[in-house]
Amino acid sequence: MNSTPETRSWLIRRVHLATMADATGWGECRDAAVAVQDGRIAWVGPAARVPAPHRALPEFDAEGRWLTPGLIDCHTHLVWAGSRAAEIELRWQGARYEDIARAGGGIVSTVRATRQATLDELIAAATPRLRTLMAEGVTTVEIKSGYGLELAAERRMLQAARRLGEREGVTVRTTFLGAHALPPEFQGRADDYIDLVCGEMLPTLHREGWIDAVDAFCEGIGFTPEQTRRVFQAAAQRGLPVKLHADQLSDLGGAQLAADHRALSADHLECTNETSVRAMAAAGTVAVLLPGAFYCLRETRLPPVQALREHGVPMALATDCNPGTSPCTSLLLMLHMGCTFFGLTPAEALAGVTRHAARALGLQDEVGRIATGLRADLALWDIDHPRDLACQFGHRPLAACWRGGRLDLAR
Amino acid sequence: MNSTPETRSWLIRRVHLATMADATGWGECRDAAVAVQDGRIAWVGPAARVPAPHRALPEFDAEGRWLTPGLIDCHTHLVWAGSRAAEIELRWQGARYEDIARAGGGIVSTVRATRQATLDELIAAATPRLRTLMAEGVTTVEIKSGYGLELAAERRMLQAARRLGEREGVTVRTTFLGAHALPPEFQGRADDYIDLVCGEMLPTLHREGWIDAVDAFCEGIGFTPEQTRRVFQAAAQRGLPVKLHADQLSDLGGAQLAADHRALSADHLECTNETSVRAMAAAGTVAVLLPGAFYCLRETRLPPVQALREHGVPMALATDCNPGTSPCTSLLLMLHMGCTFFGLTPAEALAGVTRHAARALGLQDEVGRIATGLRADLALWDIDHPRDLACQFGHRPLAACWRGGRLDLAR
Ligand SMILES: [Zn+2]
Ligand SMILES: [Zn+2]
Repeated sequence: MNSTPETRSWLIRRVHLATMADATGWGECRDAAVAVQDGRIAWVGPAARVPAPHRALPEFDAEGRWLTPGLIDCHTHLVWAGSRAAEIELRWQGARYEDIARAGGGIVSTVRATRQATLDELIAAATPRLRTLMAEGVTTVEIKSGYGLELAAERRMLQAARRLGEREGVTVRTTFLGAHALPPEFQGRADDYIDLVCGEMLPTLHREGWIDAVDAFCEGIGFTPEQTRRVFQAAAQRGLPVKLHADQLSDLGGAQLAADHRALSADHLECTNETSVRAMAAAGTVAVLLPGAFYCLRETRLPPVQALREHGVPMALATDCNPGTSPCTSLLLMLHMGCTFFGLTPAEALAGVTRHAARALGLQDEVGRIATGLRADLALWDIDHPRDLACQFGHRPLAACWRGGRLDLAR
Repeated sequence: MNSTPETRSWLIRRVHLATMADATGWGECRDAAVAVQDGRIAWVGPAARVPAPHRALPEFDAEGRWLTPGLIDCHTHLVWAGSRAAEIELRWQGARYEDIARAGGGIVSTVRATRQATLDELIAAATPRLRTLMAEGVTTVEIKSGYGLELAAERRMLQAARRLGEREGVTVRTTFLGAHALPPEFQGRADDYIDLVCGEMLPTLHREGWIDAVDAFCEGIGFTPEQTRRVFQAAAQRGLPVKLHADQLSDLGGAQLAADHRALSADHLECTNETSVRAMAAAGTVAVLLPGAFYCLRETRLPPVQALREHGVPMALATDCNPGTSPCTSLLLMLHMGCTFFGLTPAEALAGVTRHAARALGLQDEVGRIATGLRADLALWDIDHPRDLACQFGHRPLAACWRGGRLDLAR
């Protein structure tokens, strides 16, 4: 094959496909071929019927492996400084929230460290996390701000996220999560902080072009539905799509609120009721399930998977990669945990990190399926069947990966 | 540094150590150096006090990273043929044991596939599993037979295990687990099968040199304590150490039985009572905890960690890597799960895959600690503190690894 490291055109031969292009199932296509032209998928079909023009493309022999869309991690807090490992150790020994706060732990400690970090330090800290995700075939990552909680530090987090995407060749979507937690200097003045988020931080960072979507943490220990509504309105005024951390620890009607604002996604959902599920279905809001946080927090309430299924709400899965409650950089493990804890099927789990994860980011016409016209983000696996991606755990089945048509051989 | 790929002598400089050489804790030694001579640890101490003769060794600059003993996975069923993924999918959808058996699943399907596989096929199937473990710094692996359940197939499994160790440069300990399950052709004749295990399989495989230790599955769905005792006696007659799958699903007194036979380890232990724990302490039997199986089977009964701690029973952790109930090849994940599910401390978890895992294999004078005279099996990590190994999950912190003094740079 006459290709260079910069080649973005390929004919991928001798390959089985899980296209994830159908509403359910794998979109299985055995003995197939995929033509990639200048970084986009130009043709998908049976190996025997490759159109003549594509037969001249540089060939990649997949030797009978399985190809899926590149994986999408649609909910991460990947950029942060400092470590919460000592706090996690304390929690395992039974420390209560107050003990941790008194020991200087909790999200406040991450905010402190993140505010002190330079842009380069944030990038350096996040790079191994991003590369670990990429080593499992992740080609698109959502990254939230929310550990700065002041204009300059929130900007630095979003800048770091964008810079990481450019450097590593992965698609990064930035989400402004100014309403993540109340910064210490606003103690007892949550409404004033929301004024700052809506009146200064969001408008400025939007004007500067750092924001792809807006998120908030609607929870007893976060912000009220009313405060969340104000953040959503500020986003809507600027045409920015919204998402929401909803109903993780209690049912404040967060998923309903998200649906009311036609949110891209409502995330967590352990305590969501069926009325909210119906609203999500009507609004086209994706349910993003986060089994890593469920596992770390030893939750017992389960997201309403059966109701989501019955009402046709697309379910995505993500790592929720964050320093405190899901310090996890394996999206494949989330497939196994999504099936084990939440009862997803392996096909639902894979759809949750491809097709439906793309929709949770508003990128459903760009990535998440193997289909003509989409970006050539593809992952090639050493497996017998796509269900193996979910049915094993702690494995490393990636054989190769294409990001915008650029090939990266694993190991 | 004047070294070649075959170099087995090193002066590892600018390194922090978690030697795991003390009875508890990390055996922390900051700003240290380690001298390796011909594959063994020749000296360990503060960087400022390296003895003159070692200063001429080829230098490895660890740049302030943390060094631990190479990890030890002391309980695996790594060699098998076939796949149980479809069965796992059925179980997630609520299929009962009988449904699975009727669909041709369960351990019997693995036995069927393993019996049909050639030595080369077994090696080919197991190689990616072993390499995945090694990519996390594993330098010693125990591998059990037990899917052959007839002389030739059990031999082939143990041969595959030994061959894998030689090819990949990792220390493999083979365990004969003929009494793993009743082969279909002995249905209703368990005692006859135990006759075969004790009278033919064990003596032959021992004579041929394939066996390092002997194990059995003592359980309602496995073998009775009396049948287990017969296997242990056959092992004792030949001077072979024993181990036991004990008290996983019910308390048959398996841990007590293991202790009575001065077993190297009793493994699983979800249903073990405190009397058995006391017996284990007296016998020096290691408790091998298997959080991967606990997680996959959604167990709720916990191994008696507090009692094990109080009675001074060393606790090891392992993947239990197997096709049905723990299809897992991440030992680091077992650290996180051991802390999350079982309440281990991060230091106990790391001791569980180094110091105590070595003891569970009878290798405590050879591996599992950073100490003079031991084999130079070492793992170098990109972490801030050794607790990070347990406090994150789905991460890939390995920077480099030495197996018998041979350096292998990660990635
Ligand atoms: Zn989150
Ligand atoms: Zn086992």
